[in-house]
Amino acid sequence: MSELAAKAKELDAADRLAGLRERFVLDDVVYLDGNSLGALPAVVPGRMEDVVRRQWGSLRIRSWDESGWWTAPERIGDRIAPLVGAAPGQIVVGDSTSVNVFKALVAAVRMARDGGSGASGRDEILVDATTFPTDGYIAGSAARMTGCTLRPVAPAEVPGALTDRTAAVLLNHVDYRTGRLHDLPGLTAAVHAAGATAVWDLCHSAGALPVGLDEHGVALAVGCTYKYLNGGPGSPAYLYVRRELQDRFDSPLPGWNSHAEPFGMRAEYEAAAGAVRGRVGTPDILSMLALEAALEVWDGVSVDAVRAKSLALTDFFLECVAAHVPAGAAESLTPQAHAERGSQVALRCPGAGDAMKRLIENGVVGDFRPPDVLRFGFTPLYVGFADVERAARVLARILS
Amino acid sequence: MSELAAKAKELDAADRLAGLRERFVLDDVVYLDGNSLGALPAVVPGRMEDVVRRQWGSLRIRSWDESGWWTAPERIGDRIAPLVGAAPGQIVVGDSTSVNVFKALVAAVRMARDGGSGASGRDEILVDATTFPTDGYIAGSAARMTGCTLRPVAPAEVPGALTDRTAAVLLNHVDYRTGRLHDLPGLTAAVHAAGATAVWDLCHSAGALPVGLDEHGVALAVGCTYKYLNGGPGSPAYLYVRRELQDRFDSPLPGWNSHAEPFGMRAEYEAAAGAVRGRVGTPDILSMLALEAALEVWDGVSVDAVRAKSLALTDFFLECVAAHVPAGAAESLTPQAHAERGSQVALRCPGAGDAMKRLIENGVVGDFRPPDVLRFGFTPLYVGFADVERAARVLARILS
Repeated sequence: MSELAAKAKELDAADRLAGLRERFVLDDVVYLDGNSLGALPAVVPGRMEDVVRRQWGSLRIRSWDESGWWTAPERIGDRIAPLVGAAPGQIVVGDSTSVNVFKALVAAVRMARDGGSGASGRDEILVDATTFPTDGYIAGSAARMTGCTLRPVAPAEVPGALTDRTAAVLLNHVDYRTGRLHDLPGLTAAVHAAGATAVWDLCHSAGALPVGLDEHGVALAVGCTYKYLNGGPGSPAYLYVRRELQDRFDSPLPGWNSHAEPFGMRAEYEAAAGAVRGRVGTPDILSMLALEAALEVWDGVSVDAVRAKSLALTDFFLECVAAHVPAGAAESLTPQAHAERGSQVALRCPGAGDAMKRLIENGVVGDFRPPDVLRFGFTPLYVGFADVERAARVLARILS
Repeated sequence: MSELAAKAKELDAADRLAGLRERFVLDDVVYLDGNSLGALPAVVPGRMEDVVRRQWGSLRIRSWDESGWWTAPERIGDRIAPLVGAAPGQIVVGDSTSVNVFKALVAAVRMARDGGSGASGRDEILVDATTFPTDGYIAGSAARMTGCTLRPVAPAEVPGALTDRTAAVLLNHVDYRTGRLHDLPGLTAAVHAAGATAVWDLCHSAGALPVGLDEHGVALAVGCTYKYLNGGPGSPAYLYVRRELQDRFDSPLPGWNSHAEPFGMRAEYEAAAGAVRGRVGTPDILSMLALEAALEVWDGVSVDAVRAKSLALTDFFLECVAAHVPAGAAESLTPQAHAERGSQVALRCPGAGDAMKRLIENGVVGDFRPPDVLRFGFTPLYVGFADVERAARVLARILS
């Protein structure tokens, strides 16, 4: 056994989260793509069977009440809340991340504009220049429909780019490509100090590291649930609206589910109080209840412990890559500093597309981001240190 | 056996669609709420088990390609297309009906405005004054965000209300409360002749009667899939964009799934060609593939035959109600004329809320619409004439 393999064995033996792997359906593949689609929690298939056969098949329409379908968006939101540092009553689940970015960003512009003297002149939205594309596309539409211009800015340069014309700023907590973790507390404070509203996209951080939405004064945030939250393919996204801003949350998608009296069937719209205001249409119950079941894997799990293991995993992967992969064959895009690292490692190398194909053929699943990036996500709930060592060894063989 | 019970038996014996009931999971309840939540198709539980355990659990991320997840929105759209009289390539599935109303209505305003001389002055949206509320709420937001005013108009009065300021008109094919079927061909022609764009909501017609989207020149339409299409609770809605208008479909929700090159991860948005342009974010695969399985119940089924049976069912229900229920105890809001009737019967009566509770306790499931309406939906795929006679008998007992 090599020195690194022995170290992996030691690290796995000392890993207090190691037992969580049993909460998932896994095989002998090294699955480092949980930052794209989380693995299947073992509890989900049985739950879905019940949802389909009993709740839908037998109870039918009664399930909206008796099986708790109607309140699922806010109930599941409350289940996500502790994972992102939010008290209950501030998160609703539903729609895609893109749709939630639209809701949040338009609402952010409206909040900034109703914020006092001169606020109505705010006509610029800043967006992370390195964002996952959909956020930029949706921000473009939000800008167009609120009479704003859109300006892409690197996250680190946001503080210097803020002016009294800035209405809203859309930022990613972790860069989807490089895995860089941005300074959520500092940037939020800077944006809010400038009288603008920050919207955070948590897709690549929630479930992998502490977010601290309440603690850091975040106004609005969105995220998907199919990465580190393991909700299943395309599972519904979520929207966080800080409690004291909920009365000012003015949604561009005021569907009947956000009405103060949804079954009153009234012609006039009146927004519900609370986070429910972020709901739109009828929730997709099958996807939503699969997510609810999937969140049970978090029972008794501390996000701080997950973060500690995540950093240990990525540290160890970088160590193994440095030891196994020939110098110069691959360059890490992921910051060395823990404070700047999410839960993934991105390696730039020539022929990355082919290399990822061969990795997958050899039982190591990550993904390829054009033009030249190998992306490896580390889900602390089910990835171990021996997996990491094996992945680096296979990678080294392929790149040699 | 009463005369009507004997007639029901004859009608059931002659019903060529009667065998379709076996394609559903049903019990001895008379389920007349399929216009709210369709019954469970028998094929769905096994399919969901495969989707969850094999596609997600074993193939994981590979399923986006190998299990056809990525193309599900347009593939399932093509499966719905013949049910609403559309050739392939014009429907995508995804998001809620409310979100699709927003996409369609904003796009409709933009289409009307780019329609030639003077078109940019169009600043009014007409909306069905009797609409299901969410359409009105969303239309209000679409109006606000496109600089239009919103004017509620009874559908029959739309032709007289059209002016050269009308940008778009949002209409329901069937009124959710009364079951009245509106004149889709005539109203579409009137709206388009006035240089505006009509958007049709098909929630209460698709799967119950022929719609003829292509034939009648419809520009844009949306609908849900959990009523007569039996897709499951909150299953994804769909959006129809007429082929020759697709290049002019300018979505307010241009998520990455609608990009010409979604995996190019490009910062600049470029809309895809075709109906795919109506997609937004990552599709919710579990709900979507349950819907796909559910649509298999339509194999070999003619929508014309469904319509004929639907009318026979509602005729017979009205006949049984007239025979059994004391005169004056309930008044039908549903038109007598076939050309004006959807697939439901709405009865107005005092104490409707309590009456519906007692109906349900007695094995007849419909729903209650405040303040005083009993609503009964007739799904020809699984409701028979004996069911209808029994429902009317139980109703008569309760109202007597």
